[in-house]
Amino acid sequence: MQDTNPTLSQVDDIIGRSIVELYPELISWRRDFHRYPESGWTEYRTSAKIAERLELWGWKVFLGDEVLNSSARMGVPSSEVLTSCETRASQEGVSDILLERMKGGRTGVVAEWKSGIEGPVFALRFDIDCNDLQETEQEGHIPVKEGFASRHEGCMHACGHDGHAAMGLAVAKWISHYHRDFPLMGTIRLIFQPAEEGCRGAQAIVEKGWLDDVDYFLSGHIGFRSFELGEVVLNTTGFYATTKWDTTFIGKPAHASGEPELGKNALLAASTAALNVHAISRHSQGVSRINVGKLVAGSGRNIVPSHAYMQIETRGETEAINQYISDELQRILRASATMYDVELKLEKVGEAGEAKGTPEWVERLYENFSQVSGITRLISQLSLGASEDVVFMMKRVQERGGSAAYLLFGSSLAAMHHQAEFHFDERVLQIGVEGYVRALVNTLGEK
Amino acid sequence: MQDTNPTLSQVDDIIGRSIVELYPELISWRRDFHRYPESGWTEYRTSAKIAERLELWGWKVFLGDEVLNSSARMGVPSSEVLTSCETRASQEGVSDILLERMKGGRTGVVAEWKSGIEGPVFALRFDIDCNDLQETEQEGHIPVKEGFASRHEGCMHACGHDGHAAMGLAVAKWISHYHRDFPLMGTIRLIFQPAEEGCRGAQAIVEKGWLDDVDYFLSGHIGFRSFELGEVVLNTTGFYATTKWDTTFIGKPAHASGEPELGKNALLAASTAALNVHAISRHSQGVSRINVGKLVAGSGRNIVPSHAYMQIETRGETEAINQYISDELQRILRASATMYDVELKLEKVGEAGEAKGTPEWVERLYENFSQVSGITRLISQLSLGASEDVVFMMKRVQERGGSAAYLLFGSSLAAMHHQAEFHFDERVLQIGVEGYVRALVNTLGEK
Amino acid sequence: MQDTNPTLSQVDDIIGRSIVELYPELISWRRDFHRYPESGWTEYRTSAKIAERLELWGWKVFLGDEVLNSSARMGVPSSEVLTSCETRASQEGVSDILLERMKGGRTGVVAEWKSGIEGPVFALRFDIDCNDLQETEQEGHIPVKEGFASRHEGCMHACGHDGHAAMGLAVAKWISHYHRDFPLMGTIRLIFQPAEEGCRGAQAIVEKGWLDDVDYFLSGHIGFRSFELGEVVLNTTGFYATTKWDTTFIGKPAHASGEPELGKNALLAASTAALNVHAISRHSQGVSRINVGKLVAGSGRNIVPSHAYMQIETRGETEAINQYISDELQRILRASATMYDVELKLEKVGEAGEAKGTPEWVERLYENFSQVSGITRLISQLSLGASEDVVFMMKRVQERGGSAAYLLFGSSLAAMHHQAEFHFDERVLQIGVEGYVRALVNTLGEK
Amino acid sequence: MQDTNPTLSQVDDIIGRSIVELYPELISWRRDFHRYPESGWTEYRTSAKIAERLELWGWKVFLGDEVLNSSARMGVPSSEVLTSCETRASQEGVSDILLERMKGGRTGVVAEWKSGIEGPVFALRFDIDCNDLQETEQEGHIPVKEGFASRHEGCMHACGHDGHAAMGLAVAKWISHYHRDFPLMGTIRLIFQPAEEGCRGAQAIVEKGWLDDVDYFLSGHIGFRSFELGEVVLNTTGFYATTKWDTTFIGKPAHASGEPELGKNALLAASTAALNVHAISRHSQGVSRINVGKLVAGSGRNIVPSHAYMQIETRGETEAINQYISDELQRILRASATMYDVELKLEKVGEAGEAKGTPEWVERLYENFSQVSGITRLISQLSLGASEDVVFMMKRVQERGGSAAYLLFGSSLAAMHHQAEFHFDERVLQIGVEGYVRALVNTLGEK
Repeated sequence: MQDTNPTLSQVDDIIGRSIVELYPELISWRRDFHRYPESGWTEYRTSAKIAERLELWGWKVFLGDEVLNSSARMGVPSSEVLTSCETRASQEGVSDILLERMKGGRTGVVAEWKSGIEGPVFALRFDIDCNDLQETEQEGHIPVKEGFASRHEGCMHACGHDGHAAMGLAVAKWISHYHRDFPLMGTIRLIFQPAEEGCRGAQAIVEKGWLDDVDYFLSGHIGFRSFELGEVVLNTTGFYATTKWDTTFIGKPAHASGEPELGKNALLAASTAALNVHAISRHSQGVSRINVGKLVAGSGRNIVPSHAYMQIETRGETEAINQYISDELQRILRASATMYDVELKLEKVGEAGEAKGTPEWVERLYENFSQVSGITRLISQLSLGASEDVVFMMKRVQERGGSAAYLLFGSSLAAMHHQAEFHFDERVLQIGVEGYVRALVNTLGEK
Repeated sequence: MQDTNPTLSQVDDIIGRSIVELYPELISWRRDFHRYPESGWTEYRTSAKIAERLELWGWKVFLGDEVLNSSARMGVPSSEVLTSCETRASQEGVSDILLERMKGGRTGVVAEWKSGIEGPVFALRFDIDCNDLQETEQEGHIPVKEGFASRHEGCMHACGHDGHAAMGLAVAKWISHYHRDFPLMGTIRLIFQPAEEGCRGAQAIVEKGWLDDVDYFLSGHIGFRSFELGEVVLNTTGFYATTKWDTTFIGKPAHASGEPELGKNALLAASTAALNVHAISRHSQGVSRINVGKLVAGSGRNIVPSHAYMQIETRGETEAINQYISDELQRILRASATMYDVELKLEKVGEAGEAKGTPEWVERLYENFSQVSGITRLISQLSLGASEDVVFMMKRVQERGGSAAYLLFGSSLAAMHHQAEFHFDERVLQIGVEGYVRALVNTLGEK
Repeated sequence: MQDTNPTLSQVDDIIGRSIVELYPELISWRRDFHRYPESGWTEYRTSAKIAERLELWGWKVFLGDEVLNSSARMGVPSSEVLTSCETRASQEGVSDILLERMKGGRTGVVAEWKSGIEGPVFALRFDIDCNDLQETEQEGHIPVKEGFASRHEGCMHACGHDGHAAMGLAVAKWISHYHRDFPLMGTIRLIFQPAEEGCRGAQAIVEKGWLDDVDYFLSGHIGFRSFELGEVVLNTTGFYATTKWDTTFIGKPAHASGEPELGKNALLAASTAALNVHAISRHSQGVSRINVGKLVAGSGRNIVPSHAYMQIETRGETEAINQYISDELQRILRASATMYDVELKLEKVGEAGEAKGTPEWVERLYENFSQVSGITRLISQLSLGASEDVVFMMKRVQERGGSAAYLLFGSSLAAMHHQAEFHFDERVLQIGVEGYVRALVNTLGEK
Repeated sequence: MQDTNPTLSQVDDIIGRSIVELYPELISWRRDFHRYPESGWTEYRTSAKIAERLELWGWKVFLGDEVLNSSARMGVPSSEVLTSCETRASQEGVSDILLERMKGGRTGVVAEWKSGIEGPVFALRFDIDCNDLQETEQEGHIPVKEGFASRHEGCMHACGHDGHAAMGLAVAKWISHYHRDFPLMGTIRLIFQPAEEGCRGAQAIVEKGWLDDVDYFLSGHIGFRSFELGEVVLNTTGFYATTKWDTTFIGKPAHASGEPELGKNALLAASTAALNVHAISRHSQGVSRINVGKLVAGSGRNIVPSHAYMQIETRGETEAINQYISDELQRILRASATMYDVELKLEKVGEAGEAKGTPEWVERLYENFSQVSGITRLISQLSLGASEDVVFMMKRVQERGGSAAYLLFGSSLAAMHHQAEFHFDERVLQIGVEGYVRALVNTLGEK
């Protein structure tokens, strides 16, 4: 591991130099998170590591029911899965006291630093969950080569949230160590959000009220299409509204040779549903998407399948288009159940809407980020063409009169997001941290 | 456990009385097999138990490659599954020597007893594998109540093969202990067949030649529809010809929102295949069946599914009808792959044909079984309407000039075959053993 | 046209000779019907020809509402079609008086001959409608060669009903001319039934009461599989129960490029229905059938199709199986409509059930037909494996204590029924007529 | 019919006044075309009327093979349809001489006016075919009320081509009568194109070379979304690339009850194709469309359907996207045929690509149209979101260095295009003619 970020080491001001100093730690945090990835609502170790460090650095830390409105969580895993992940976290050293506060899928951390001087509330949000994916074992893969590949089977940070979490830690440590040099007013709030994958976690934090009094809100993402290191998008628009669905068809088994007519075939209900939802009409008002991503049905070759489970998502360039696709989907699922005389269970397990940055805030960010070392190009606005539940937070902030923006931090990528070979250029972490810090200092700095 | 079979205890001849004496042991063998069920090609412990006992009783025992033509096995589990089952067998006490001979899914036992006097070859076949099914934990279920429920998760003897194996042991022990009282000529061959479920195992034994010189062949099954204890079918006909298929569609993943058009959707290929194979035309010449029993596709909600696996079976009242359905199936699967531009892998993992008993042999069995205690009704002929790979053995015997028959032993059943609540009336075991022994004695007895 | 039936001309008794004399006329009647085929409920000319002749021969003739319960007719064509066929019939010489009585699709004729002496009622039924089929124009086709091919476009007697109607006329004329030589008691009733194709007409006659008092009932069909001239089946069983359905999906059009999401796609509703009804499970209790025979949907390439029409039929070896398939079908059609948010119209347009001959009656027929010239083989019983609405008549007769049977008259066929090249050996007509006459004379003859 | 266009009657220059004088004739031509609508490749009467008038006015007129490369025509109707339309045209007064030149679907007219002075070639294109649609008979419908509703069953000018053709005549007459007052150089070419509906006709004219030497090209369309009279779009972009397909599946009939397994089911092949082509993935690079607009399959309820016909169209925001959808479509159609073991016939019957106006030409048009009476708003550019085969002409002109543009003439509409109640505000015709004339005079006028 390199000790310092070579291309970024030539910086001439205090903020720049202070962050260069944080770089080795930043990398080690990121790699630790990468080594122990945890899926949505099971980020016990991740949350504990964050909470312990922040507490140490003097932040007021909130956990469990303080962070979330539990009933607003979506797509929480079964209690078997939760228990098994809790056991794993315990074995990996999470203290019983912390674990007790988070048990049952109540992960995530909120931390606050109050200046003591009246002033605005500035919130930063970092998502911390991993993907359900087996990391590649190829030798060329950096995490393999450098020894920080995932040790959790079927789990991998393939979307950069390990980097997001590490950036959050770095911002926290910087504030803790340098705030005396840069007197700030108001309140800084760090939100480490669980379960962003599947758009399941943001709403539960919003409903707890953590965004209600926020004046300035920032979040961001590492890596975007072919954008390179040094390219940063300041106003991400074009979030696709999305809904995530879990659906189960429950029929009746029967011996497929002896009395097939007594079966109620859940597999065929699911198959006909899959085909027909993909045939939902395109929408003339904009982009729409539908995907049946998973289908598991039946118990054995000679039994009429009595059970079928599907994971589905819809998207729309606007919330109205997503609503159209979702309405079509629900009707088709119900009709497929009727068609095969089987029962339908349908659960909404994730959701996100549209959003875009607040224009004046984006302008100020432009100034702030112009000072960041290593930035080669600032892009004022870009359409994402994907979904993020950060929109719930942005919209809440904006509804209450605050300003919000979502950033994209360019980086060369070894493979696209959500792929087993995903890896980003770690130097992007320093760019992100410096940008966040400069925005904080410039916004809350006493003038 | 009762010590003697109460209804059958009043028997007046030597054979009858000798078998009554075997009854407690017969029950304990069956319950031992029931407690440790093993799925097709993993019957390591079951085979070992059989081999050890037969060796003890003076039979010449064959194992592993002596029993099977390995390359003719169908539907062999993955090496991971085999290894895991071998480990389990080892932990359950199977000796390394025996295990070594069977490793890699080369299970099953053949045993021979040669009289030393020139005479016919009489073969009996017992299938020994279990079902892939979780046994019920309901208190009323006899195996639960009497403490012999399955200790292997996801495995259960729900088709009576535990009883078949136990009958085979009883026949072996009887011959071993009583042959001096009933001088026999010729050869007795006991075939303990693995992997009958899915019609995967018989062919590999046939190809090894074990049926080539057989003059008389018998096998049978416990429980049939609503037939009661004491009812026995002597000539089972109407075996449905069947073929078992494993099929995999391999496409290309893509982010379902970002670039869905780059995906090759294996889930939709499988769904359209499932629907269309169920729409294969009925056949005017007799019964046909098709079942997609299992479908597993996709990796995650927001990824175009790149992988789909299906378990399928076809059946026909005749081999020609099964061939018709199989031909249609294969064409539809290929077309579904083309339709979604995905790759198709198709493997035949099981197979069985038509067969029926040899008339004169059935007539002689009628006489033999008339002497069996506890029999209330002998049914000369009955159509099974299901599939059994014993047909490969019967046909080989008949092609070479031998005689074959397949019996059904009536028994009240707690639930139908292949169900979690399946249990049979254990007294049926005594009926079966006595029938087999009388057929042996009457056929091979020196006259 | 040959003047006499060469193979059958050597007959020695009065009945036989009298029927040989009728042969030329029998052929000319059949050929006239063949030339002017009329589809179900439009048999205006056919009915008029029959009525006029029977009246001339002294029979009491019933027409229109006297024959049918109009509201029990199924599958009546649209008023446009009826009107157009009425115009055609008028142009072909049907008198206004007769036409007026039949208008609106009230075709068919019942005729009675009362002996004046107390005795049983003997009913014979002849179906008279043609198929909706264009007759071949190939030179080798006998009707083309002999100049009696269909002159009605899209209509053809391809099921032998022209022969059935001609046999009815011959029986009527024979009774009229010879009854003095063979004194009979009781009543003879001839039922010329419209709309047998599609099983649409019998029920309307049954509901009018014409079968309520019948003691002996006979009907029959020309040609069956590969049976040859001279082979006659006396007891047809294995009528498949059947239901015929017309279904229409009504959606909403929209420009397929401009605003496709506003359309309600009836074509896709019909397509998914078609696929899924063909996937209805086979039935373990016997033969089942399903067929979507016709599908017409959409108005233009660039319009989301708002209209789809389908013709469907279900069959079952028993009424219970047909009911199962019909229930499945209806649910699937409703679900398909829901799936595409379109309206469903579903109409039962034909129906028939199971039936079989009355055993003692079949025995007596065996004797009667043994006397018929040209018969080479009498088959006591045969399973049809098809549907015929004559079963409604047979069942009504049998419910009231009468006897019924349905015959099959073997004949070599140029092509199978319902094909453009269909033609039967006309000598079969003489066999049928002689059989019917002998059954009448032997049953009603004063003894 | 009003004698003059009231709102436009206040014009002060010669061109304006001269066109006001043409207005009554313009309306009468349009209504004559509306009364006798002719579908693509059958515009015999329409072409004859145009040719006769142009000849009379001194234009050099080209017909039949002079106009078209016959083999490049797409979607030509069957010879039965052509013959029937030719007979109709003859009955409606088209001279044998003209008819002979156009027979076999070689419709359309090209006319040239050469100034005699060296100069540019200016081509105007007018499409002349009608829609396959039954015009409404509602009293409120202006063509009904004013007595010029369609007299051709199933044919209607519901897309304004009657108006386009009339505009072409008016331009021709104006040039013929006024060219002496406005000395022009170069050549004027009027192209009256057949078969625009379905994008079938333009390519055949392009391949004949009529666009090769064109310096300035104009065409346009009446009515667009909610644009009102007086609103004119000068540069239409966003033509969707499109391909039109006719496909036929040919299987084998069989009796659906007697021997269903012998059938090859074309209806199910078409149904599965319809569903699966609608499930073709959306494209991330832009708008895509697919529509199965028509499906006709099967011959009768009890026959396995041996024949199915479908009309399909694909579209894409770019030619690459349309190509993607078309490639997917073709593969799915082939796979559907394989799936049901039926033959596939696939014919491309129409096609169009992308295009947009030449910028400098659009700027000059802006000036020209600014002078037109009654124009309230000029829109520089608008995306069409639909397809037009004029793009073939535009692209050929631009490839050769010429300039092209496609205009949209706003008008209130009684119903949207392609609907039975379609009617436009006839005053739009005067606006179009004046614009075309001013563009001609300004471009070709000697300066």
